[in-house]
This record gives sequence, structure tokens and C-alpha cells, in this order.
Amino acid sequence: MIIVMQPDADEKAIEAVEAKILAQGLQVHISRGTERTLIGAVGDERKLDPEMFDPMPGVEKSMHIVKQYKIVAREWHKANTVIDVAGVSIGGKTVQVIAGPCSVETGPQMDVAAAGVKAAGARLMRGGAFKPRTSPYTFQGKGVEGLELLRTAADAHGLPIVTELMDPRMLETFLQYDVDVIQIGTRNMQNFDLLKEVGRTTKPVVLKRGMSATINEWLMAAEYIAAGGNHNIIFCERGIRTFETAYRNVLDVTAVPVLKRETHLPVIVDPSHAGGKAWMVPALSCAAVAAGADGLLIEVHPNPCDAWCDADQALTLAEFATLMEQLGAVARAVGREL
Amino acid sequence: MIIVMQPDADEKAIEAVEAKILAQGLQVHISRGTERTLIGAVGDERKLDPEMFDPMPGVEKSMHIVKQYKIVAREWHKANTVIDVAGVSIGGKTVQVIAGPCSVETGPQMDVAAAGVKAAGARLMRGGAFKPRTSPYTFQGKGVEGLELLRTAADAHGLPIVTELMDPRMLETFLQYDVDVIQIGTRNMQNFDLLKEVGRTTKPVVLKRGMSATINEWLMAAEYIAAGGNHNIIFCERGIRTFETAYRNVLDVTAVPVLKRETHLPVIVDPSHAGGKAWMVPALSCAAVAAGADGLLIEVHPNPCDAWCDADQALTLAEFATLMEQLGAVARAVGREL
Amino acid sequence: MIIVMQPDADEKAIEAVEAKILAQGLQVHISRGTERTLIGAVGDERKLDPEMFDPMPGVEKSMHIVKQYKIVAREWHKANTVIDVAGVSIGGKTVQVIAGPCSVETGPQMDVAAAGVKAAGARLMRGGAFKPRTSPYTFQGKGVEGLELLRTAADAHGLPIVTELMDPRMLETFLQYDVDVIQIGTRNMQNFDLLKEVGRTTKPVVLKRGMSATINEWLMAAEYIAAGGNHNIIFCERGIRTFETAYRNVLDVTAVPVLKRETHLPVIVDPSHAGGKAWMVPALSCAAVAAGADGLLIEVHPNPCDAWCDADQALTLAEFATLMEQLGAVARAVGREL
Amino acid sequence: MIIVMQPDADEKAIEAVEAKILAQGLQVHISRGTERTLIGAVGDERKLDPEMFDPMPGVEKSMHIVKQYKIVAREWHKANTVIDVAGVSIGGKTVQVIAGPCSVETGPQMDVAAAGVKAAGARLMRGGAFKPRTSPYTFQGKGVEGLELLRTAADAHGLPIVTELMDPRMLETFLQYDVDVIQIGTRNMQNFDLLKEVGRTTKPVVLKRGMSATINEWLMAAEYIAAGGNHNIIFCERGIRTFETAYRNVLDVTAVPVLKRETHLPVIVDPSHAGGKAWMVPALSCAAVAAGADGLLIEVHPNPCDAWCDADQALTLAEFATLMEQLGAVARAVGREL
Repeated sequence: MIIVMQPDADEKAIEAVEAKILAQGLQVHISRGTERTLIGAVGDERKLDPEMFDPMPGVEKSMHIVKQYKIVAREWHKANTVIDVAGVSIGGKTVQVIAGPCSVETGPQMDVAAAGVKAAGARLMRGGAFKPRTSPYTFQGKGVEGLELLRTAADAHGLPIVTELMDPRMLETFLQYDVDVIQIGTRNMQNFDLLKEVGRTTKPVVLKRGMSATINEWLMAAEYIAAGGNHNIIFCERGIRTFETAYRNVLDVTAVPVLKRETHLPVIVDPSHAGGKAWMVPALSCAAVAAGADGLLIEVHPNPCDAWCDADQALTLAEFATLMEQLGAVARAVGREL
Repeated sequence: MIIVMQPDADEKAIEAVEAKILAQGLQVHISRGTERTLIGAVGDERKLDPEMFDPMPGVEKSMHIVKQYKIVAREWHKANTVIDVAGVSIGGKTVQVIAGPCSVETGPQMDVAAAGVKAAGARLMRGGAFKPRTSPYTFQGKGVEGLELLRTAADAHGLPIVTELMDPRMLETFLQYDVDVIQIGTRNMQNFDLLKEVGRTTKPVVLKRGMSATINEWLMAAEYIAAGGNHNIIFCERGIRTFETAYRNVLDVTAVPVLKRETHLPVIVDPSHAGGKAWMVPALSCAAVAAGADGLLIEVHPNPCDAWCDADQALTLAEFATLMEQLGAVARAVGREL
Repeated sequence: MIIVMQPDADEKAIEAVEAKILAQGLQVHISRGTERTLIGAVGDERKLDPEMFDPMPGVEKSMHIVKQYKIVAREWHKANTVIDVAGVSIGGKTVQVIAGPCSVETGPQMDVAAAGVKAAGARLMRGGAFKPRTSPYTFQGKGVEGLELLRTAADAHGLPIVTELMDPRMLETFLQYDVDVIQIGTRNMQNFDLLKEVGRTTKPVVLKRGMSATINEWLMAAEYIAAGGNHNIIFCERGIRTFETAYRNVLDVTAVPVLKRETHLPVIVDPSHAGGKAWMVPALSCAAVAAGADGLLIEVHPNPCDAWCDADQALTLAEFATLMEQLGAVARAVGREL
Repeated sequence: MIIVMQPDADEKAIEAVEAKILAQGLQVHISRGTERTLIGAVGDERKLDPEMFDPMPGVEKSMHIVKQYKIVAREWHKANTVIDVAGVSIGGKTVQVIAGPCSVETGPQMDVAAAGVKAAGARLMRGGAFKPRTSPYTFQGKGVEGLELLRTAADAHGLPIVTELMDPRMLETFLQYDVDVIQIGTRNMQNFDLLKEVGRTTKPVVLKRGMSATINEWLMAAEYIAAGGNHNIIFCERGIRTFETAYRNVLDVTAVPVLKRETHLPVIVDPSHAGGKAWMVPALSCAAVAAGADGLLIEVHPNPCDAWCDADQALTLAEFATLMEQLGAVARAVGREL
């Protein structure tokens, strides 16, 4: 950590900063420049925080030099982590596609969806039983019955399941239904109590990016899960909030190469929530794979017009099958497989 | 709701939209323009959602005309709601100041803080027992012991308490300690399960704005609490996330008059988290009161440099006392009291 | 245009709105709903603006139904426009790559760059003679001498040139040097006097997106050029400004399919300014082509470490040659050529 | 400037960075930490830029320690600068209000406006002759005739004038009409050629903040003007672009105390463009003055409903007079006058 002193900071102020660093067990290195004196804290600076120094007399600002995440950082774990989900590898050479409806509705809907996404080449199935909705007056998901329907449909077609957990009190139920991958949604990326709970399991976790979370905050949220002992974390970029109103979110495709550089964990992309319209999904899916994503999370519905939720962003099964073919070509163009 | 058809939409497409609206129990009103046909849904459009129409053939876009919130809307409740917190009125002519340290640390710290903020004119005390921190490696709050310390210190000085609830499993404990106002933090504004839980109590709730939540989403989050039966909701603007990096957040002072127009509920401002630096707090506090805020939530610490959390944004007790005098003058200038 | 009346708007208010619409030569269509009365203006609504109605008594809000751009809109011009630049087609099946250094420095630098980008397959050359720099104390470009060096180097290798115009007073000079494509930079996207000037020429224009311009504003900026008579406009997405600080801008890859739907004009992407680091350029370039971009604008420098400007985002000639091969594969995967 | 080396950077990489710093005439200071080596450049770091070091082998990142602006910085000029505009002081104890219509329309309109704003206490008059409009199909301002009308009306009531310059080719005309304060609009904040031109005059300049400009970029834009010799610069905050759609811009009230700390130059606020609605103007004006603004720029129109431009944000003369009384009280509450 570096503490930049104000131009008129006196020796007493410098000594006070020095004493605080030493008290934390780190060493001090002082550099007196022409306009500012800089004080370096040498040692494990993860114990320090800018707010410890910024209010001190004579301090202009202070900043971390080293990133605050450790377990998830590639710096300390050079090789890619490949996560095994019931025999399906995420993070290896093959780009994995997780597909299915936004919300679980009925048994027949789920069965048709499972058969269709499987036939098109998806290797995992998604479906929401608990739905975070902006309005309390809209459909909130089928709850436990939804988990049951998802489990049954996916099992019939040999697909592991991915579904969202919103409340720590439901974790036990998720484990009973043996949910293969627990999804933490964008609104809960910094629900730290929930992160701690899934950190105590060994279940793979898809950690969606908060809609206005920085890359650093996202990595720190993953560090919460990892610090609990669960290192099976999959990052999922799903679009960020900006000033643009022509589409729901802006898919941050740059996050893919940046995360692949910063962390050894897999990175997937949700093109459906990013754009918010089904017609945008093919272009965004191709872009994500071309940028190096390890997988995609795509909404597919047997009959989008009648979907109970996010109807405007779901692909039909036919559209999905066509997209999968194109994605195969793009994956091969960048040295991957589908 | 209005559904805008594409220029080349045929009669079949128009009839399908018409049928869907009628099936929901609303009436249809069609307007054929020179470039577009518009279909209006007449009746309680809260049952409808753009996503029900956007994926239909021939539809260009659809939009709500009426706001989706109802209980919290001033349209249906013209008079200001004044919330009573253990004898202190929030939302009336008097601007109320809630003050105290970011986190509860020790008994003596809390006692000095309580005495100081009380003496300066604050009528409620804040203090965090459970702290949402970006890093899992930093201080996470004293937990239940913190509640105990806060309760004790505030009681000794006759101050009701305000503290943050992060996990629905802790609600029972909050009720046991008779927390006077439950704070829902910025990261949990759309933690819908948590909102539903506090909606089942009668405790006043401070609902902080999500760091990138729109005014509409914020009002809908409050509607979640209200829909459960708890109408004692206080909005708290605490700065939003933007491109600017010179300060932590941008205090959205416009939110104050806009909310006062949209809702009958009280609106307060947290200038400490907005700017992130103690020296910004006086200017932002004065601006908030001048803009019409019903109260302020200010971080004050007996010894900011040694605070365990957010040290750089806490005022000293002396700074707070000076600020309170200035705030009194500003409040009177806009026809309020402090 | 639709004008939404307040719930308590009286007949007099409705009649006033009606009269204003009729006075502009449009027809009126009224729809009385259960909660609001809506007034539709039927006819060419481009003459109207929400600000004409919003301040009137009883009006809640008003909104355009039809887009305000016309010449650039695909709605009125279904086929793709292909722009010919000295024999190179932009907007057709072939993805075109424009490459070269950020700024023109010396004759030898430009000659090596021109030879290298040509050999790797680029068909146009870029180079800045006039540089918009955040600080007045940094290199501002070589000016007219730079134009001369760029023209000479590009001619020697048979490459048309693309370079930025910042000041309307320099347009004549650009025409003297027969600049093949005039670039309007991100900071000048809404420099309307400059747009009007280039609109009076027939030179192809690369219109970069303002760093926080919406898609709609960008299309309207192009409409300024088009309204002057120059329809040879190429949109260039170059990253937008968001809250993220891990990279300079966020490449808005969604803008590519959205623009291709909204306009018949070509859309290219600048991956160099988007990410701001050379190592991000390959992933972003592949993503852009996979998303449907008609071309790329890439910074390449014979010796990036010694570049006078934006050194950290330029590819070496060898890196560029490798990237071109990969881009060829991605282009073919989505049915294009390079 | 500090250059942070990668953990595996070797001596050769460190020496190369060292050599580059020495070549620029600065000294080198090396600090070897447990995880990273830091290299400090000691001397006038304004000659250096991160992009000079970031592409070098072994460099992780580099950052400025000292701000890049100098003439406008309070660090080098402690006392407030007070600018004299035809006898009216901006930046002193008195808060100055600049008022008038968005655009100059007719002689009678301007005369009524001038009389009204003068009577209410405004000491300068605003009015746009050249209007930057999003659409080429809307009113673009009356041009030179507008300057004439503004000059005449203001002179009749003894008010200095403030009006926007969009094109460097019009500067001569502005000087002929002896425009008292030249306004640089939000879209031109980084129109560097325009900034250089006004920098060559001695006319006071109101520099509006770009709609997504950082504080640092804004100060650097002012430095462009100052570097030309013109130090009569007035910053004008006018709202920034964010994700919020409930109002046009978010008034960044925090910018006021931050700028007052960073620069010695006056800071004013435009509450009219910030919110975009007349009913928001009083609250935002009070907030701005309470936060420490040196002045306000307010749109006032004799008959807002018939205004040719931005009709929905103009106050009537009566509303303006009422607001001025309230602003007087707020100004006094914070130790200022109106």
C-alpha cells in the first residue's frame, strides 16, 4: 500500500503513518519527492485499508498496490481450474451451453424444453423455481414444486441442473434436490450471508455479476465463497447497467478476457439477460464465445409467447438449434469445441 | 399500456394482441396512425407487462402508462405520511438527524458517541452490528454483541436505534432487541425475501437505495414491504454509482424532490456514504436539507482515525455539533425545523 | 406522439393539447382510460417534441412513437448501403480492417507501418495528424505535416487513408490532401457545426460514438451529416463510459446488431480505444466480427513502446498479422470474409 | 509517478523503466516489496504519462501521484479567484444568478425577460443564439440576429450577457457584440480547438461540464483555456449522465465542494438542464447554493409553454421571483449573500 502525503504534511504526520504501518506488522519505505512524500507499506497489505490512513492528518490519499483477492487470483494459481458438474467439464477446451426456460412452469413445458435443448447439444439445463422480480405483483416462481419439476425433467434427459438460490433458508432444500449448480443472481452478488452459506457447501456455484459491480467487487464476492472452502466457482457475465436505454443491459464482453487473466476459474456469459430481446441473443452468443467465454447460459422456451416470465428474451427450440450450429463454428475458429 | 405495432404489422397480428388484452380482462382501444398502429389496453394495466406483448408477431414495443407501485404512491395517498419512532416523528416539519458510528465497537465508544450526538441535537442513533464488507478479510461487525452494545448506549441517552439487517434469519433477534428502525442496506434493496420478511413486521424500515437502482425500482422495492402490510417505510438516498472516480458515489439530490412528489413516505439522505469523505459531509448535508429531505443519516465517531470501519467518512463529535447548527439555519431557510 | 394526461386533467387541458396538435397540422386521437386520458398526434410527428407538451397544464408526460431519424433509418431504406472508398467496399460481405498508428510521427515510422498492415491484409490505413488529448501539455499531433506523411506512406502502398478532423477550419486542407475517409472523433460526435460541414462534402465519414452517447443520439448525429447531403456514413463503436475502472471503456458489442437493425449504413468497431490495452485487442476484435461488425479500426505501431501516443494499446506488426489470421477464421464462421 | 512492476519482472525490465525515467530528466526511487517492486519517478511528473510505461515488459501498471492541472489548481493558488464581469463579481461572497430564456426568440420576448429577471435580482442575463440540438430538424437558434436581440435587451436593463459559442469561426462575431461571458456548452467541453481559441481572449468563460466528464477531465479542459493565457474561467455543473431515466441528468452536487477544494476558480450550477423540468428547479437551486455554489444559471421565460426550445424546464418570471427570495434565505444560512 502507498500513502501519498499532502504537500505541506509535516514530520509528525509522516511519523504517525509510519507508526500505524509498523503496528500492523508491516515495514515502512519512505520516498521524498519534489512535490509529495510517499510512504510505502511493505508486507502483506491485505491487512490494510485506505480508510485506515485517509483520515489521518497530512494524508492526501492511499491506495492498494496488490489486489485484495487471493484464492481466486490467477497470480497464485496459474493453471485454469476445470469444474466437474456430474461429468460435464466447465472451464476446459469445450464451451458448455446451459439452456432452458426462465422459469419452471409445468411438467410438460419442462419435458419438451429438456428434450429440445439436449437434442441441440446443451449439456446442462437451467430453469428458475424462485424468481427475483421487480414487482411484488408479478409471478414469483413455483418454489419447491418448481425444483421438483426441473429435477424430474432434467433427469429424464440426463442433464445436470442449474437454478437460482435467493434465500439462505432454502439451501437445505436445494441440497435435498441435489441441485447440481447453485446460481447466485445479479441482485445477490453482494448478499454476503448467502455467499458465506454456499461457501460452506461443495456445490459448484454460478456467480452472476451484480448489475453495476466492478470486476474487483465481483472477484471479492467470489473470494467470500472461496474463503468458506468452496472453490467451485463459475463467473457469469450478464450485462451491466449503463446510460443506454435502447437495450436492457450492456453485455460487457471485455470482462471475459480480463477475468480469464485475473482468475483461474471458468467464465461464462448470459446473453439472454444482457440484451433482453431474443433477436439479440445469437449475435451476443457468438461474440461471447469469440471473446473466450467458457460457456453460455441461454434462455430457451418451447413457446416464448406464452412464457410466464421474460418471454421476450427466450429463443424457440428451433432458433436455439440453429444458434448451436453457428456457435460450433465460432468455437472452432478460436480453437475451442462445443 | 400501449402496444406499438410495426409499420408492416397485418390485421392478424393486431387481432392477436387484442385477444391477449381481452383475455386479461381489459378493454382495447385501437388508434391507426400514418406510420404506426397503436393498441391501448384500458383497465388495470398492473396485470400486464411489456414482455407479454413484445415477443408477439408484429409488435414493435409496448410500454406502461401507469406506474406499477400503488401503496407507496402519492397518487393514491395525497397527504405526507409521518412515521412515529418511539415518539420521534419522521416526515413532519422537523428534519430528523440520525447519527452514530459506522460500526459498533466497544461499550465506551458507544456511550461517548450516544452522549455526543444527543447533545448536538440528533434524536436517533445509528450503529452497525452486522457489516456488509466488500472483502471477506475485513471486520464483519460484532454481531449480536453489537446489538446489545448499541441498545444499551442508546437507552442510556434516550435515543431510539437504527441498525442494518442483512439476513432474514436474524430478524427474530432484531425484534428481541426491539430495534426501533430496521435498515435495509444498499446491497439488499432487491433482496426480495428480506423485504418480504420486514414487510410482515410493523417496525419502521429505512430502505436505502441500491447503488444503481432507478427511482422506479426503489419504489417497487418499497412496494414489496408495503404489500406485506408494513407501511412504515423511510427512503434513504445514499449516492449512486456513476463514471466519476473522484468520490465514492454521486449524491443524487434530485431524488429528493422527485420522491417527495411520487410517494407520501418520508425521504432521508445519507451524506456520509455518498461522498465517502468526512470533509464532504457538511456541504452534502446542507444540500440535502435545502432540497427538501426529511432527515439525515450521518456517521459520527468519537475518534474517527481509530474507527474499525469507514474511518475516512466519520465526523468527530465537535464537527457534528458545528454542522447541526448550520443545518438548523438551512432548515429554517426552507421552512423546516431541526 | 402520445401525450399522457394527469389523472385529474380537466377538459380544458385536453382541449389545449388538442389545439396545439392541430395547429401543427397533425390529427388528434383521444383514448379515455380508467386512470389516464391519452392523446395521440397522428401524422408526421417529427415536427413535434415532448417539450412542446410537457409544460402544459394537465400533462403528465409525452413521448415519441416514431424514431426521429429518417435518412439513416433502415425502416425507409431496407438494403445495406455499401460505401466505396477508393475501390474498397465497406458494408458488404467482406469485413474491412483499417490499421495504423495512433499518431503520425515520422516518415520511416509511417512507411514501415503501411508496409506491415498492408502485408497482413488491412485495406485502409489510419493515422492521426490532429490529436484530441486530455492534457494541453501532451503531444497534440503533427498537424498538416502529419497529413502529408500519412498520405505519402499510404500512397506508396496503395492504401486509402482515414484520419480525424477536429476543426471545421481544417476541412479545406483535408480535401486538398484528398483524405479518403474523414473521421469524426468521440469528443466531436455532437459538434454539430463540424457535422454540418462534413455533411456538405461527399467524402465518406467514420462517425465515432460519443463516449456516453445513446444509440439514438448517435443516429441523430449521423442524420445531421445525412441531412446535409452526405450519405456516406460509417458508424464506429469505440467503447462507452461506465462505472467500471478495470479498463478504459466498455466495448458495447450489443450496439453492433442493434445498429445493423436500425440503420442501413455500415458499422465498424475500434477495439483499441475500447479496452485501452493491446492485450485486450484480439479478444475484442474477434467478438466484434462475431457480432456482425463490417470492419475494424485497429491501432498498430512498428514499435509500440516508443509510440508518442496511446502506446499501451497498439499492436506490433507481428501481433497484428497473427490477429488477422484469426479474424479470417471468425469471419468465415459467421458467413463473412476478411 | 509510480510504476508497479509485475511479480516476476526481472532486473532488465526494472532497468529499462529506470532508463526511461532518467531520459526524461527525472530521478528514480526504487522500493522492493514482498510482492511487487515499485519504481518512483521523482521530479516534474507532468512530462510523463502511464502509457509511456504500461507497454514495457514487466510493468503491471503505472499511475500519476500529482494532478496534471496546474494553473487552475488551488494547490498553487490558495486564494479564491473573483472574476469581474462588467462590474459584477463572480466568486466572491455574493451568489450571482444568471437568468434568461433558453433561446433568443424575439425582441419583445427578450425585453420582457430582461426586465423580469433584473427585477427579481438576477445580475446577468443568459440567452442562446446558437443552439446545439440533438435533431437537425429542430430549431437551431437565431444566430447572429439572436446575438443582436440579446445584446439590445440586456443593455436596456443594464445586464451583462452570457451566451454559448459553438464554432471557433464565430468567435470574432462574439467579440464584435462584446459578449460579456462566453459559454462553452457540455458537448464542447473537450472541443480542444474551441478551448484554445477562447483561451486566446480575455473574456470570462463559463465552462460547462461534459455530460459524462470526470472532475479531472473538466479541470484539464479548463487548463486548456488557462494555458492559452485566459484565467477567467467559471466552472458550471449542469448534471451528469447516469443510468437513471426518471430525470434528464443527475445534478452532481458533490462536484461543488470538490471543485472548490481543487481549484481557486468560481463554480456555478445550472439547475435547469440538470433536472430538465421546471418543477425541479427550486429544490435543485437551493441545494446548489447550500452546497457552496458561487452562482446559478437558470432558464426563465415570459411564457414557457410557447418557448421554442426546452419549454419544459423554464420558470415563469413569477416563479423565478419567488425562487430568488428563497435563495436569499438559503444563501444567508450558509454565510453568503444573494
